[in-house]
Amino acid sequence: MNHSQLFENIVRKRSFLCIGLDSDIEKIPAFLLEKKNPVFEFNRRIIDATHNFAVAYKPNVAFYEASGHAGWLALEATVDYIKKKYPDIFVIADAKRGDIGNTSMMYAKAFLGNMPFDAVTVAPYMGEDSVTPFFCYDDKWVVLLALTSNKGADDFQYHNEDGIRLFERVLSVSQKWGNINNLMYVVGATRAEMLKNIRKLVPDHFLLVPGVGAQGGSLAEVAKYGMTNKCGLLVNSSRGIIFADKSENFDRVAGEKAREVQLEMESYLTERNLI
Amino acid sequence: MNHSQLFENIVRKRSFLCIGLDSDIEKIPAFLLEKKNPVFEFNRRIIDATHNFAVAYKPNVAFYEASGHAGWLALEATVDYIKKKYPDIFVIADAKRGDIGNTSMMYAKAFLGNMPFDAVTVAPYMGEDSVTPFFCYDDKWVVLLALTSNKGADDFQYHNEDGIRLFERVLSVSQKWGNINNLMYVVGATRAEMLKNIRKLVPDHFLLVPGVGAQGGSLAEVAKYGMTNKCGLLVNSSRGIIFADKSENFDRVAGEKAREVQLEMESYLTERNLI
Repeated sequence: MNHSQLFENIVRKRSFLCIGLDSDIEKIPAFLLEKKNPVFEFNRRIIDATHNFAVAYKPNVAFYEASGHAGWLALEATVDYIKKKYPDIFVIADAKRGDIGNTSMMYAKAFLGNMPFDAVTVAPYMGEDSVTPFFCYDDKWVVLLALTSNKGADDFQYHNEDGIRLFERVLSVSQKWGNINNLMYVVGATRAEMLKNIRKLVPDHFLLVPGVGAQGGSLAEVAKYGMTNKCGLLVNSSRGIIFADKSENFDRVAGEKAREVQLEMESYLTERNLI
Repeated sequence: MNHSQLFENIVRKRSFLCIGLDSDIEKIPAFLLEKKNPVFEFNRRIIDATHNFAVAYKPNVAFYEASGHAGWLALEATVDYIKKKYPDIFVIADAKRGDIGNTSMMYAKAFLGNMPFDAVTVAPYMGEDSVTPFFCYDDKWVVLLALTSNKGADDFQYHNEDGIRLFERVLSVSQKWGNINNLMYVVGATRAEMLKNIRKLVPDHFLLVPGVGAQGGSLAEVAKYGMTNKCGLLVNSSRGIIFADKSENFDRVAGEKAREVQLEMESYLTERNLI
């Protein structure tokens, strides 16, 4: 999927919602634990109930690894299910990988080669040769960490050399490694006020924005400061949608919550005359 | 395992060798592919042949993930095998994880809770709350990236604020998060000349040093500039040992290669009167 196709999906769905599948086996409805593969069953029902309102899903790999190889089976089943049933939906492995070249190549193979993910989140600390192996698969994307939504972002990401903060250097330098069709950036919604300046550095790249909802970020501010004339935003919500209800109707409630977010997103897309 | 116990093992083995289990299924001897679990079988034979010469093993998680859930089964079997048969050996999950707090907690659970790894490598970009969840397990360690062995280390790790480079800030700031019994740092052997200055910042912490061998780092220089009066070093070698031979005798040859490295290490420990 390229930049234009992603925008077309946003226009068609009237939504730039990415739903985070942080499918913690200890938080899914208890009745699902009797199923053979409870996490996959949870995901399947969430996906079927929300896919009309989302353009992307983002399984958070940690929550699968925490169940070992069985968790990886659930991860594999989930991405296979999405790409077979809803092939237009963009699926991001939120894995925060990154290592020396031959090792990053193996991580790229894991997520973009063997599994049909469209994108994987990558940590920039180890620099160019830790990131570029993820560009070896056509039509697949790197989602590079720039400015994250957590408190610890202050520890290193603002480290300032001659007026250039580390996250700004990451944005500037990494643009040479990819392009708007295979590289997007993580910018936390809790830092929405920074989006205005970030858009000066990356005017056209898509941004994946976590932190709306449970982490306190504002969707209105993200849209105000971050939206481009091709939308340029995927805004993630996880817990606020997938764990909104723990009853047997959890999927219906998740669908309602996703619909609420989609309607708000539709209003911002309309304001900007993008739909 | 704490700092003193790790040093005791180094004295007893006369070695500070960590063997990297970068067990690429495409590089292991072909005859093993007929086995039920070729990667685990490869690891088991490497471990049995080399354990007398090493104080640590470091499975590189990427090479397991590249085979999906089957790879994770091999990873789980490998760490279980080491800790049951050779419980004094320190086992590091080279995973380069790190995410917001609740997600890092899941990664910690995966490697330090559910699997019996002693340590996990962690990327510092997201700061304190991405690292500290890994300290929740007693006697387990974080191995934090500081200055890596690859070319891309130049891209961001030297970003310099008022004379303090990013990797130096990582070393300084992160010391408040852990202590010498639960925190060590990755410093690449290809940057051995930096070890002298790094030892001013972290005089007592263990350093995990990759990059000797295939990546070109010098063991002599690492020992010269990095060794403390409790050794303070785990030096990793992967490909130079585990893929030294592709015949049916691959394990015997790996044992000989590990023995060579151990003997060189013994000479440096003797020079410093540590054994």
